Amino acid sequence: MLGGPRPEHARDVPTRVAVDLLGGDSAPDAVLAGVAIALRRDANLHVDLIGPPHLTQLSQLGAEDVAERRRVVPASQVVAMDEDPILGVRGKPDATVGVAARLVRDGAADAMVSIGSTGAAMAAAVFTLGMLDGLSRAALLVTVPAAQGPVVLLDVGANVAPAADLLAQHALAGAAYAQVRHGIRDPRVGLLTVGEEVGKGDRVRRKTGALLAALPVSFIGNVEGDDVPRGGAADVVVTDGFTGNILLKGMEGTYAVLSTLVAQELARHGEPARQAVAAATAHLHPERNAGALLIGVDGVVVVGHGASSAGAVAACIAQAATVVRDGVLPGLRQALGTLLLRCGPGPSGPVPVSRVAR
Amino acid sequence: MLGGPRPEHARDVPTRVAVDLLGGDSAPDAVLAGVAIALRRDANLHVDLIGPPHLTQLSQLGAEDVAERRRVVPASQVVAMDEDPILGVRGKPDATVGVAARLVRDGAADAMVSIGSTGAAMAAAVFTLGMLDGLSRAALLVTVPAAQGPVVLLDVGANVAPAADLLAQHALAGAAYAQVRHGIRDPRVGLLTVGEEVGKGDRVRRKTGALLAALPVSFIGNVEGDDVPRGGAADVVVTDGFTGNILLKGMEGTYAVLSTLVAQELARHGEPARQAVAAATAHLHPERNAGALLIGVDGVVVVGHGASSAGAVAACIAQAATVVRDGVLPGLRQALGTLLLRCGPGPSGPVPVSRVAR
Repeated sequence: MLGGPRPEHARDVPTRVAVDLLGGDSAPDAVLAGVAIALRRDANLHVDLIGPPHLTQLSQLGAEDVAERRRVVPASQVVAMDEDPILGVRGKPDATVGVAARLVRDGAADAMVSIGSTGAAMAAAVFTLGMLDGLSRAALLVTVPAAQGPVVLLDVGANVAPAADLLAQHALAGAAYAQVRHGIRDPRVGLLTVGEEVGKGDRVRRKTGALLAALPVSFIGNVEGDDVPRGGAADVVVTDGFTGNILLKGMEGTYAVLSTLVAQELARHGEPARQAVAAATAHLHPERNAGALLIGVDGVVVVGHGASSAGAVAACIAQAATVVRDGVLPGLRQALGTLLLRCGPGPSGPVPVSRVAR
Repeated sequence: MLGGPRPEHARDVPTRVAVDLLGGDSAPDAVLAGVAIALRRDANLHVDLIGPPHLTQLSQLGAEDVAERRRVVPASQVVAMDEDPILGVRGKPDATVGVAARLVRDGAADAMVSIGSTGAAMAAAVFTLGMLDGLSRAALLVTVPAAQGPVVLLDVGANVAPAADLLAQHALAGAAYAQVRHGIRDPRVGLLTVGEEVGKGDRVRRKTGALLAALPVSFIGNVEGDDVPRGGAADVVVTDGFTGNILLKGMEGTYAVLSTLVAQELARHGEPARQAVAAATAHLHPERNAGALLIGVDGVVVVGHGASSAGAVAACIAQAATVVRDGVLPGLRQALGTLLLRCGPGPSGPVPVSRVAR
């Protein structure tokens, strides 16, 4: 490719990716090391390193064998994580993300990658590359490798509080992506919310549900958080960037924790394996931790999943009993009372006392 | 206890839990089986089964050995999942959740458990039991068994769109709970949002951050989705019930998917174990799936985590290259165009065409 016309499917064509060297928690080291790995894995890959030339020391790459597929494109400015991304991109014409976006716009690179400020990458991309027809704002999309097939999830961080019409746009975009990228002819689109019944969720969700039902896609209705890692319910899951980001990170963190435990356990035990793994991960099992405490009412109330198994019900009951025996409620009254006293008076305090009469 | 005064710590005291037999996806079977398990595990547990007497057939329990610690309390009505919970509870005086709540209020039971409509359980509890001082609305709280110690997470479903002052109340309640239940003297409280920097998130989060900073708790600032399963950052994580519910279910689903894979793999291979487990779970690894596609801009843009490792950066790059080679962008233009055509015209359509000029 290298800026040429883009054929529909061409896995062996040279491809150039512009990589932002600045930004990210451990840039540029992680970025440079990642570039080296990518280049070694893919003989048709070319990389533009966008950043101050002094950072692109070839020694850091330790990869003379791939040097000819690496090019340095100087850029000296960076939009910091705590900087306003739009002002930052507008005010810094030589920012790495802006330079990268222009390379893509001009056909000198095929794609750009940044692990710096997401907002800055978005702003640079939107300003420089423009939008696809039909979309007023971009979303961040991931494909989650769910148990029952890929699930396209969007938005995972671009728009923290989108209106319903933007969510509907993103549903279209996600469905289109699922068709193109995953070969799903008629993708099932689900709206992420807190219950399957129509109307579950907040006002935005209710309004979005009505809009999605009118779209020319197979809208299957509401889906819930676990439908994303499990898959099977919807091919495309639409949500706001706030919820999507937190869900995604929660899934990733869970994976990291669990897989670390598995690896540690197997390294130690080797053979007996199955029981050992089960024992090591048992305390993380959702069933064992079933049941939510209804905090705030003057009594012990445990609420479980509607889909609770027998084991989960037993856990709910055991939890309720333990809470009672440990004197949680009287302790809670006391601890809360102490904290309230320390809040002091004041009309703008966070604790309006509106006690519901029995 | 059985309705008597509640000592501060008394693990061996008889305790009575009122269990709602109606509601839940597989009630009453799962509930009855769960009761039997719980009773066998805990010799000091007593259970009130709240439901129509014909449902409490003792044969379903198959547990004559625990029969004397089981009592049937008749209640014939149920508040359905798709019913308005407040109207349902008010209009059905003989609903199981209402009967259960009254048993707790009157001291005939120490706690109640329901896996039916969450809203109905909440409404019955609030109406019947009243609120703790200082709290205007209840939250659903769970303790997540995080890698680095327990994390108290609330709300996980009670209030889908709380105002900042309610979140501040729940922060207090969560901190109090962490003190009492987990013995954490000075719990660190974090606000769940989409970035560590102050001000990250939506308007409610910004307002809440300011309120939490003024509370008499150790507010450590923002935390992110993966801080919940990982732990270590905060002992108490505060969020709205919409986000918390989806996060929790996402973590649970991830656990279920991963642990199923682990078990399957170990059952098949037994000895080699470690590599087998790693291979079976590799496709779920967040690093391998690193990088979000910025969908909506007219170009290929991949955005990675700020904390990307070298491997994650390489994955971002490889993803960008693959997207280019597979012709995703031109395909996307086409697919989206087709969908847009099918949307037809109309002023109230979800797709305002506001193309950003290059």
